[in-house]
Amino acid sequence: MAPRSAPSLRPLLPVLAFLLQTVFIGLFAFFIEIRWTEETSQVNTYAVFQDVHVVVFLGFGFLTTFLVRYGFSGSGFSLLVAAMAVQWATLLNGFLLSTWNSRKKIAVDLDSLVDAELCAASSLIAMGAVLGKVNPVQYMLMALLEVTSFVVSQWLLQTLIRIQVMNTIMYLHIFGAFFGIMTSWVLYRKGTEQQHEKEKSDHKTGLFSMLGTLFLWMFWPSCNLVLLSSKWWTLKNARRREIESNLSAVYGTYLALAASSITAFGMSVLTSPRGKINLVHMQSSILAGGVAFGGAMTAVHVPWIAMTLGSLAAVLSAVGFRYLKPHMQLAFECHDTCGVLNAHGMPGILGWFACLLLQLIDTEDNIIAIRLACYHISILFIMLAMSLVLGAITGFILKWNFWRAPQNRKCFDDQAFWEFPHLATRK
Amino acid sequence: MAPRSAPSLRPLLPVLAFLLQTVFIGLFAFFIEIRWTEETSQVNTYAVFQDVHVVVFLGFGFLTTFLVRYGFSGSGFSLLVAAMAVQWATLLNGFLLSTWNSRKKIAVDLDSLVDAELCAASSLIAMGAVLGKVNPVQYMLMALLEVTSFVVSQWLLQTLIRIQVMNTIMYLHIFGAFFGIMTSWVLYRKGTEQQHEKEKSDHKTGLFSMLGTLFLWMFWPSCNLVLLSSKWWTLKNARRREIESNLSAVYGTYLALAASSITAFGMSVLTSPRGKINLVHMQSSILAGGVAFGGAMTAVHVPWIAMTLGSLAAVLSAVGFRYLKPHMQLAFECHDTCGVLNAHGMPGILGWFACLLLQLIDTEDNIIAIRLACYHISILFIMLAMSLVLGAITGFILKWNFWRAPQNRKCFDDQAFWEFPHLATRK
Amino acid sequence: MAPRSAPSLRPLLPVLAFLLQTVFIGLFAFFIEIRWTEETSQVNTYAVFQDVHVVVFLGFGFLTTFLVRYGFSGSGFSLLVAAMAVQWATLLNGFLLSTWNSRKKIAVDLDSLVDAELCAASSLIAMGAVLGKVNPVQYMLMALLEVTSFVVSQWLLQTLIRIQVMNTIMYLHIFGAFFGIMTSWVLYRKGTEQQHEKEKSDHKTGLFSMLGTLFLWMFWPSCNLVLLSSKWWTLKNARRREIESNLSAVYGTYLALAASSITAFGMSVLTSPRGKINLVHMQSSILAGGVAFGGAMTAVHVPWIAMTLGSLAAVLSAVGFRYLKPHMQLAFECHDTCGVLNAHGMPGILGWFACLLLQLIDTEDNIIAIRLACYHISILFIMLAMSLVLGAITGFILKWNFWRAPQNRKCFDDQAFWEFPHLATRK
Repeated sequence: MAPRSAPSLRPLLPVLAFLLQTVFIGLFAFFIEIRWTEETSQVNTYAVFQDVHVVVFLGFGFLTTFLVRYGFSGSGFSLLVAAMAVQWATLLNGFLLSTWNSRKKIAVDLDSLVDAELCAASSLIAMGAVLGKVNPVQYMLMALLEVTSFVVSQWLLQTLIRIQVMNTIMYLHIFGAFFGIMTSWVLYRKGTEQQHEKEKSDHKTGLFSMLGTLFLWMFWPSCNLVLLSSKWWTLKNARRREIESNLSAVYGTYLALAASSITAFGMSVLTSPRGKINLVHMQSSILAGGVAFGGAMTAVHVPWIAMTLGSLAAVLSAVGFRYLKPHMQLAFECHDTCGVLNAHGMPGILGWFACLLLQLIDTEDNIIAIRLACYHISILFIMLAMSLVLGAITGFILKWNFWRAPQNRKCFDDQAFWEFPHLATRK
Repeated sequence: MAPRSAPSLRPLLPVLAFLLQTVFIGLFAFFIEIRWTEETSQVNTYAVFQDVHVVVFLGFGFLTTFLVRYGFSGSGFSLLVAAMAVQWATLLNGFLLSTWNSRKKIAVDLDSLVDAELCAASSLIAMGAVLGKVNPVQYMLMALLEVTSFVVSQWLLQTLIRIQVMNTIMYLHIFGAFFGIMTSWVLYRKGTEQQHEKEKSDHKTGLFSMLGTLFLWMFWPSCNLVLLSSKWWTLKNARRREIESNLSAVYGTYLALAASSITAFGMSVLTSPRGKINLVHMQSSILAGGVAFGGAMTAVHVPWIAMTLGSLAAVLSAVGFRYLKPHMQLAFECHDTCGVLNAHGMPGILGWFACLLLQLIDTEDNIIAIRLACYHISILFIMLAMSLVLGAITGFILKWNFWRAPQNRKCFDDQAFWEFPHLATRK
Repeated sequence: MAPRSAPSLRPLLPVLAFLLQTVFIGLFAFFIEIRWTEETSQVNTYAVFQDVHVVVFLGFGFLTTFLVRYGFSGSGFSLLVAAMAVQWATLLNGFLLSTWNSRKKIAVDLDSLVDAELCAASSLIAMGAVLGKVNPVQYMLMALLEVTSFVVSQWLLQTLIRIQVMNTIMYLHIFGAFFGIMTSWVLYRKGTEQQHEKEKSDHKTGLFSMLGTLFLWMFWPSCNLVLLSSKWWTLKNARRREIESNLSAVYGTYLALAASSITAFGMSVLTSPRGKINLVHMQSSILAGGVAFGGAMTAVHVPWIAMTLGSLAAVLSAVGFRYLKPHMQLAFECHDTCGVLNAHGMPGILGWFACLLLQLIDTEDNIIAIRLACYHISILFIMLAMSLVLGAITGFILKWNFWRAPQNRKCFDDQAFWEFPHLATRK
């Protein structure tokens, strides 16, 4: 170990961590205050908030533990990144997307925290594409830049073409996935194709990632719920339509995920040469239904469409894992560790497409239909363009040797970053 | 591996999965619509619903991961079965136990989803008896038949002797356990008694099943709560008695489980020849108190009876695990992998008996007492008879070679169904 | 194994378990009844209660699974201890801190259960200091004495200097940590310094304890929330100040924990000779912010102070783990398995100090300030004195050979207490 160990994080990580945390404390001190809202019942916010909280910190964190020797890093650095991204997103959302109050402060409440967690989720998705190939300093920088990019994209859409944030926050899956893919593409290093015997799961790590997956699966209805503009917790003053849309979101997400699961098992067996199920593919595909429905739910009002969408998303995701993922690595030299393109990117676009289609079918007037299509296409186009360009720029920044990325043979390995008792020699 | 591997799932599982999912989508499209209920506060439903959701998908799934090489199958196939059972139970509950509205549709809401999850829980209990010995296609068929049998039994009780569903849903533990036992008995194959060195737990799989057990343990109060007819969430319009019964259910379940836990540890040490604790027995016994109290809670109004019931259930369950389970295998040729008879069956019957006894004590009029006893005994009798007969029939259906059950030496082994990276040879 | 196995638990554990449970049932039968409160909305209690429930039973239980061969014991005995402590604390809180109603009964509701769970949490913290070195009988006795000591200390403060329980319950971290430290100090045995190769974590056990840590981390806001006297669930009748303090507690805990996490990673790298992160230190340090803020939250009204406090707590905790913990063992012969002094004790005192400081700054009148300081210092002094003295007495009681503590070489080893299939020989 001694002479050829991974580069030490010693000066870099503490400096970045303390610097960021100090800056955050300073900015919070000057600009943030807690908003006292008497009218909204905080109780209800809180239960749904806790579900989202579990999804972001436990679900995404443990989803990444499938790598056989990267469990500490997967779950630990997800926590580090999310804890940082939430603080930064709270500040950025405040600066760019909120209004300042009379005391020149930005008022925050639990809703702000939920929005910040959704931005953090977006950065965790992006992180999935480069997982195992960079060091925690690079994860933190990437998350900083991803959150910034996502919030700036929302701000652009809001100021340029007056699209409200509540209509763009649901693009978090698409934005995160394509951002991550581009970063990973720029970071691609020759000679890493064949050698990574560490890039696999075993009996126990598979169960840990199953656990993370199940928490994502179980609490996804809450995550889709908070994407709706008519928030669940304002129920008392809500009109019938709002209750309808909330119940429809929960029930639809649930059914989309259930349909997704059954289809995912079928697809995994169908596409396997030996008729066996691939655990990692299955875990991502069962979630694809939730992503797709999340993008389309404002236009879906009957359960069977949610189920159909869930099944299609699982088919798309499973096919992507089996055929697109290896192809991308060989042909495009783009390596996507967690397969975020197939788990979040493609199902997100399917959801976007379904939403457009269903809204067009509902619209009788041709002119309105064309306007609607333009509106939809322009959001997707700007989101995609921003994620691809800014993801690539992020990749170039992370490529800088100054950040001391781990060597190829230290990729996907906890020993590069974590103390292990049996390796600890007395200094 | 190559020549003597387990039978491939290739044509069977995808065909069954896609067929079922397509049929479900079709039936949902024609018959199901979401009910908009303005009067009930959906918020409160949602928090309790999420607890039940966690119990069904995470709790039961991870409870089965104790088998040393069957963790992927235990958790994965539980998800597959539950996702299917919930959809099917929603449809069946709608067809048989609900009323059709004016548009010839069945209206569903979150309450329907909770009821469907309870039916799915019943099928997961039955699955526990055959765990490791059949393939996922057989699990799915078994769950389909179990849910059908349970709902049909409830329907029979409703139409024949006018017993409302809210009084029969709590038989889910007894029904599932005896159904599974009978299926397992019919499926019993000679030559499997001694050889299964895979049917044990190790240090890590024991912790995974501890995790599942804890989620069942922690959220069991919510599961008992939803069994009550006076639902928690209609609290605002509730009279004093309804609040009382709800609080009593939560508090009683909690105390029954706590008493159960302490007694289970004591019993496990007491019945062990070397004075040590058996993890798998203990995990089931600490839950027995929740099952027993769930069956009796409408008649229990003081905490100490809940605690006594919890302790007795743990004693019964622990004794059953040590003495009844090996006896059943040797004498009756009935192998019960998860010990569902001792974890759900016997404690359920204890709860039923306690309920009857407590109600008889409360009743002063002899004629009413006799009528009450007849009522209780007839429900149990019909439920037991239906579960035993239909469980046996299910066993005979599953025994058909067409379903390609794994060979004896592939039982309790993930490698029969799952891809493992280090085994994957290039085709 | 045969001749030199650990002392059997056979007569002792069952006797203690059944005796305690019988006594509890008897005391509940005579003195406890469930309180029917119509005015408070039980629904909201329930969601927050469930979070606390998860923290106590899952969080603390799985936090202790980091020891490589002590996972069954860590999680199993935590459950045993917590299930017992909750019942005992309900009784003791009722006897000493509640009022008897007209029927000579103590009325309990979900609030009582939450308070009892907080006392159980205190005993689990104390248990962390001796983890792996005693047997389950000793854990149970220790928890009984710890809960008794904590409730008696609260009762003393209430009767002697009229300090209400709602102002002393938040000392649970300090009380538990120092109680445990003293017990561990008295129990210290020569010859255990070097040999414990079992006192370490591995790849998989690290992930299990990460899971427990995350549940503590995620649901800590609920735990701090229930410490407030103005309970969340009385929201409807609450004045503006109560909503404010509740939201402030949740938001502040969240930010303190996020700041704590980032600082903990930085500190772990900074203090490591090779620039690597220590998982066990990191897991405790990320929680330190929650402990510290919990002690100070009544005086913290702006987010940035919560963040600063969280960062300082992480620094204190990380430094304590690296330098204080080995020093304590070598110089003071005090071994603290889970490092509860650094995870709960020191951050708790930091929180206490911050609370005092912030209240003094807010106070303009010198006389009131001096009185306030005396009030604060006297609570801490009595709590510390009681925990140290009673912890030492508990240590002497546990040292008695009658309890049959495991031999040195059976410490930190599940095989002393649990059946393992591959070790089971036919009798």
